[in-house]
Amino acid sequence: MRLGIIGVSGAVGQQMLECLVEQDIVVDELRVFASEKSRGKKILFNNQEYTIQVADESSFDGLDYVLGAVSNELSKKYWPWIKKSGAIYIDNSSAFRGDKDVPLVVPEINGEDALDNHGLIANPNCSTIITLMAIAPLLKLGDFNSMIATTFQAVSGAGNKGIEELNNELNNCNYQPKVFPYTIASNVISEIGSYLDNDYTSEEMKMMNEGRKILHHPDLRVSCTCVRVPVMRSHSISVRVVMDRIVDLDEGKRVINDFDGVEYRDELVTPLDASNQDIVYVSRLRRDLTNPNGLLLWCCGDQIRKGAASNAVGILKYLLDCKHN
Amino acid sequence: MRLGIIGVSGAVGQQMLECLVEQDIVVDELRVFASEKSRGKKILFNNQEYTIQVADESSFDGLDYVLGAVSNELSKKYWPWIKKSGAIYIDNSSAFRGDKDVPLVVPEINGEDALDNHGLIANPNCSTIITLMAIAPLLKLGDFNSMIATTFQAVSGAGNKGIEELNNELNNCNYQPKVFPYTIASNVISEIGSYLDNDYTSEEMKMMNEGRKILHHPDLRVSCTCVRVPVMRSHSISVRVVMDRIVDLDEGKRVINDFDGVEYRDELVTPLDASNQDIVYVSRLRRDLTNPNGLLLWCCGDQIRKGAASNAVGILKYLLDCKHN
Repeated sequence: MRLGIIGVSGAVGQQMLECLVEQDIVVDELRVFASEKSRGKKILFNNQEYTIQVADESSFDGLDYVLGAVSNELSKKYWPWIKKSGAIYIDNSSAFRGDKDVPLVVPEINGEDALDNHGLIANPNCSTIITLMAIAPLLKLGDFNSMIATTFQAVSGAGNKGIEELNNELNNCNYQPKVFPYTIASNVISEIGSYLDNDYTSEEMKMMNEGRKILHHPDLRVSCTCVRVPVMRSHSISVRVVMDRIVDLDEGKRVINDFDGVEYRDELVTPLDASNQDIVYVSRLRRDLTNPNGLLLWCCGDQIRKGAASNAVGILKYLLDCKHN
Repeated sequence: MRLGIIGVSGAVGQQMLECLVEQDIVVDELRVFASEKSRGKKILFNNQEYTIQVADESSFDGLDYVLGAVSNELSKKYWPWIKKSGAIYIDNSSAFRGDKDVPLVVPEINGEDALDNHGLIANPNCSTIITLMAIAPLLKLGDFNSMIATTFQAVSGAGNKGIEELNNELNNCNYQPKVFPYTIASNVISEIGSYLDNDYTSEEMKMMNEGRKILHHPDLRVSCTCVRVPVMRSHSISVRVVMDRIVDLDEGKRVINDFDGVEYRDELVTPLDASNQDIVYVSRLRRDLTNPNGLLLWCCGDQIRKGAASNAVGILKYLLDCKHN
């Protein structure tokens, strides 16, 4: 298996290398790419050293798969070159997520969608992955059409730059924000992405638009409020879904806990608990007091891992497993 | 006007002194009380020094009003002594908020309720005050019966101890939490107060129970998720209310901005913006995508001020103004 990784020097790219080892993916050839700034730097993978290159038109020739952890702009630049090479591209950017012939995949929820690809598979938004992992199990007990979500998003969502900005602000009260639109230390910012015509942000609309595609649920309606919080690397989401029937709470906890990649906890989970591992934790499942069919829950997951790198590597693993079985 | 303050050495008690000056309340006699730890310490009010006493049965005799910023337990201990003295007690604790003959007052919303007191007026929960200030104006455009709220609550909600704990954790990564049930630095904790039989916390149920009483709305249903965040002194709340009609968004913004003590901002407000002043800021009013009658908004207010001290002093001012007019 010959693999390329673009954006390997970022938080998600680095995490992808670890996830490949953890998910027991055998890599026969590895090529690692990043921006000019990182050209020539060495990275370690499975105790072997690799030199970071800057990709050009022929860099992907001969590869089977490419994992991408780059901006929308760079993803659009590289995709024609990857396509030409015949490799399958698993893209963490949002550049192609809405395209009809591009599957958008959380392996535990809709892994089979990845098989019907045209060489390009999109990795969903981080908050969307973590929220859907928490609520998709409930579909075993009934349908839902309506969700209200408020997110508590870690600074890692803006990559290593976001983590550095929070650290800089904590260490120097005169530091002026560069990455986030407001100071994030001792603050919360209900503005992630750009404002759209309906006054929601681009980040907020991903929860509805990507949720519809992943769950095969074109009528799903979601009102989301996305909020950046001074937390390093795990997202938390306060969720309310309205089911089409009254769901027994113990049954709800059981199907959530039985879902691959998810764990229900009777005690509270916090983003610190959820950090540096791949499980999405759910707690506080309880009855909505405004609607007997409604359920509230609290979920936490590592943004860099399940919200990005380990989900992308999980898509790769799903493809490889299907090929071998 | 002869005034007593109990709990004067805490964050809210200290703020009450400042708010008395800011709200131009003339105090002819002041007695300040706190715990044994603070006995004999001096505080400054209007450039005059006062010595902190520990209250006993006769400490309140001859006073007209007492402002309380103490625990439920201490409030219950002091109330019979205050009652005996004939002073009117404005209590920031939650000890008496649910009692039928105790008005629960946000002056801008239901100030007139304060006039029908039996010597005791309760100051509401901090998140409840800030949320209701943001949504009460909408009642001018229609009724609402249903609310989903997720709070982002500052550490000041646990008093000076809470602020110290966050500072200690930021300065010493080995510090073990004493005030909050989990580490709060670089974390968020969806557990404030104690768990009730319905799996909501005591803090979460205040939003519904106190909201019903303040708005004179016994049918109001609220599903609340209360979350502590590493912010020093302002609360933020992500709110969704369902109106009984479709409300024009510009009309909504106008009635919010016109409400006494509230300001609507077209740009985002953050808890840092809202700190150290008394206005409740609202922004991001937008249409609920799951229900055309629904509205989403984001509001921020200083927890120590409007969430506690300045609201309590505002009740006192309301009583004094009514007396003089």
